[in-house]
Amino acid sequence: MKLLIAIVHDDDVHPLLEELTAKEFRVTKLATTGGFLRSGNTTLLIGVEDEKVDALIEIIRDNCESREQITTSPAPVSGTAGVFVPYPIEIKVGGATIFVVDIEKYIKL
Amino acid sequence: MKLLIAIVHDDDVHPLLEELTAKEFRVTKLATTGGFLRSGNTTLLIGVEDEKVDALIEIIRDNCESREQITTSPAPVSGTAGVFVPYPIEIKVGGATIFVVDIEKYIKL
Amino acid sequence: MKLLIAIVHDDDVHPLLEELTAKEFRVTKLATTGGFLRSGNTTLLIGVEDEKVDALIEIIRDNCESREQITTSPAPVSGTAGVFVPYPIEIKVGGATIFVVDIEKYIKL
Ligand code: NI
Ligand code: NI
Ligand code: NI
Repeated sequence: MKLLIAIVHDDDVHPLLEELTAKEFRVTKLATTGGFLRSGNTTLLIGVEDEKVDALIEIIRDNCESREQITTSPAPVSGTAGVFVPYPIEIKVGGATIFVVDIEKYIKL
Repeated sequence: MKLLIAIVHDDDVHPLLEELTAKEFRVTKLATTGGFLRSGNTTLLIGVEDEKVDALIEIIRDNCESREQITTSPAPVSGTAGVFVPYPIEIKVGGATIFVVDIEKYIKL
Repeated sequence: MKLLIAIVHDDDVHPLLEELTAKEFRVTKLATTGGFLRSGNTTLLIGVEDEKVDALIEIIRDNCESREQITTSPAPVSGTAGVFVPYPIEIKVGGATIFVVDIEKYIKL
């Protein structure tokens, strides 16, 4: 038995939890405070049998991997002279950190 | 030294913490968010000497074990014709998940 | 790779996080609820390479170690007869608990 501690972006939590639940993984979601660093992250605890660790990591990868997203450039502050033509910009979203810890004893009461 | 991570039902937290405190276990209570799954649970971190692990698990079992409770059937929505006779129904309450993790180093500053 | 779980006093969190961030440690801050015990504490998760564990513990010690602080005695409740002369008293502040856990696998997505 392993304990997976996954720190994922808030934006990715909802689809990730849906897939994990559909595949019957048991997840506990901890609150991560909006501190001045790492705000916007959620910490998940997932108990998992050894032989399912890789499948679990794949699911997290599919939903949370760091990736580039095309967004539209923000409009300039009003009052700027001239015509504003929005242009696409790339931003980086997602990303996750996973710790896999060995469990000595796992008990379900 | 072991670290016990216990996920217990909110309803069982208060009596459990009272007993753990009385028996001088040191507990840290993490906030578990009200996500769409596992809401209503609390995660506890408990550092414990190897030889007290079994006693600690027994205390959690005594306070949190999944069990049946007799409750009264809810009254039907008003407007239903006839006389309502409440009857007892069994519901399942409690339950806990415990992970026991080995600690390489334990430091108290 | 190790996972350090540090439970520190809220008062010490801000300077600690500033130093950890400046030294490029990656910290996740969990919310610790204001339960009837251990309220006022914050739990930090820090992934760290084996060879940096001691340096990390030293930083936590510098910022969080249990220490005595001189404060002024509180004024007596109003209505007490006589002149109140405040005197210095020592109180204990800070303190931290650190668990070092071995990580089987560490993944950054
Ligand atoms: Ni990020
Ligand atoms: Ni339950
Ligand atoms: Ni304290």
